[in-house]
Amino acid sequence: MQMQMLQSSVSLGLSASPVRVVKCSLVRAPSTTVNDPNSMAAAGPKWAQKTITLPPQRRGCHLITPKIVKEIDQELSDFNCGLAHLFLQHTSASLTINENYDSDVRDDTETFLNRIVPEGTSAPWKHTLEGPDDMPAHIKSSMFGCTLTVPITNGKLNMGTWQGIWLCEHRDYPTARKVVVTLNGI
Amino acid sequence: MQMQMLQSSVSLGLSASPVRVVKCSLVRAPSTTVNDPNSMAAAGPKWAQKTITLPPQRRGCHLITPKIVKEIDQELSDFNCGLAHLFLQHTSASLTINENYDSDVRDDTETFLNRIVPEGTSAPWKHTLEGPDDMPAHIKSSMFGCTLTVPITNGKLNMGTWQGIWLCEHRDYPTARKVVVTLNGI
Amino acid sequence: MQMQMLQSSVSLGLSASPVRVVKCSLVRAPSTTVNDPNSMAAAGPKWAQKTITLPPQRRGCHLITPKIVKEIDQELSDFNCGLAHLFLQHTSASLTINENYDSDVRDDTETFLNRIVPEGTSAPWKHTLEGPDDMPAHIKSSMFGCTLTVPITNGKLNMGTWQGIWLCEHRDYPTARKVVVTLNGI
Repeated sequence: MQMQMLQSSVSLGLSASPVRVVKCSLVRAPSTTVNDPNSMAAAGPKWAQKTITLPPQRRGCHLITPKIVKEIDQELSDFNCGLAHLFLQHTSASLTINENYDSDVRDDTETFLNRIVPEGTSAPWKHTLEGPDDMPAHIKSSMFGCTLTVPITNGKLNMGTWQGIWLCEHRDYPTARKVVVTLNGI
Repeated sequence: MQMQMLQSSVSLGLSASPVRVVKCSLVRAPSTTVNDPNSMAAAGPKWAQKTITLPPQRRGCHLITPKIVKEIDQELSDFNCGLAHLFLQHTSASLTINENYDSDVRDDTETFLNRIVPEGTSAPWKHTLEGPDDMPAHIKSSMFGCTLTVPITNGKLNMGTWQGIWLCEHRDYPTARKVVVTLNGI
Repeated sequence: MQMQMLQSSVSLGLSASPVRVVKCSLVRAPSTTVNDPNSMAAAGPKWAQKTITLPPQRRGCHLITPKIVKEIDQELSDFNCGLAHLFLQHTSASLTINENYDSDVRDDTETFLNRIVPEGTSAPWKHTLEGPDDMPAHIKSSMFGCTLTVPITNGKLNMGTWQGIWLCEHRDYPTARKVVVTLNGI
């Protein structure tokens, strides 16, 4: 069946001017023309999943949207409406969404993380065998999280103008990091 | 096909009394009666996606469940079992799930965020061009995150009794905030 | 239709040796052989949702992967490729993914949370009626979050070697905690 793109204006609350709302109508799958595999295939729900390996990065916050998109661009373009899930398979790094423009934002975020999570001889950790940066890395990983879900609209990740995907590397010695990407939609 | 709602009691661990577990059986789609478009449409997987604009809010944590539900209630009612994904398209505000009852909880959360993230002339940030509240806002956005996924059950968001959706506005000067809502399920 | 498992090696950036990438090809549903309900049922998208009750846990971080997997193992095995969503229906506990091996990591994480979130008579909270541990619990819940999404691959949760699911109990007096688990995929 066809996906209808509707535009209507919806005002909520105090905003002075009407706000344009883009709406993807409720879409059901599959198509009723079940004898046409191409038609049904185009309309039915789709899944794609792959594991991407990001190269080692120095400790700090890194903008990785281009790397991610390059790896999934072909599959992404096949979706009209859906969700892209990213899952970092590590406990000493994290994923977050934040500013894609000024690299000072990434530097300042690293400054914050190091300020707030004790590290070194004065830190109160029991888990010290893997080095002074390891327990702080675990804490930072849970603070920012290791998973993200981004909407897909018209074959693209539908983030705000200034949003980008960051890999935050919390260990001193860089290692490759694996991300399982799962796309789902129609 | 039919979705079966089963109830069984499952005890796990040390709880003294049996605990009721509501279970939605594994449901496959689509229906085998493919010649009946209405039957298939009702049973098949569904997607809906829209961008909601929330009106400007003063700095602080705001309970927005009613606003969100009002915008998606019609589409939501069409789902028996699924997930609702909310994606805030901004890097200086955040979304979280927390108490929906006592507004002091929202005030205290704002107090905590301001206490933990340095702001002003003594703050160690390089990113200062957009004002003293901006870099702290980016940090708070990554701390709480900009995405939420809530289960849908029987046409409703399936949250706990005391849970609500919060928009946390981290900038001093209020601006409208866009949220992409994606519903998926059967 | 069949899901094709392809293996290809993809090098990204500075890694010295080729990295094996496991790729689940873009899969469309449903099957074109619509007259065979068994074939279609096996290939079509599937949903399963259940509410699990975790027994009361003492305050602190707890590895709950075995408990979760035991509850959903049967349904999980039915999925080739998908996502498992966990939603904790509480505002004074949290879910996170972190190390599954050394329990010191869980102890140190609890130490960190208590260090960073003020508690007791010197804490600046207005919300105090439910006890000195309550407002700190709400804050910790938003810091770590109450939802997780984990990829499903070949009938299993596809986490990294050292990753596990934690329930972080933030209240002093243990209570049972409900988690809505939603599985979706093919």
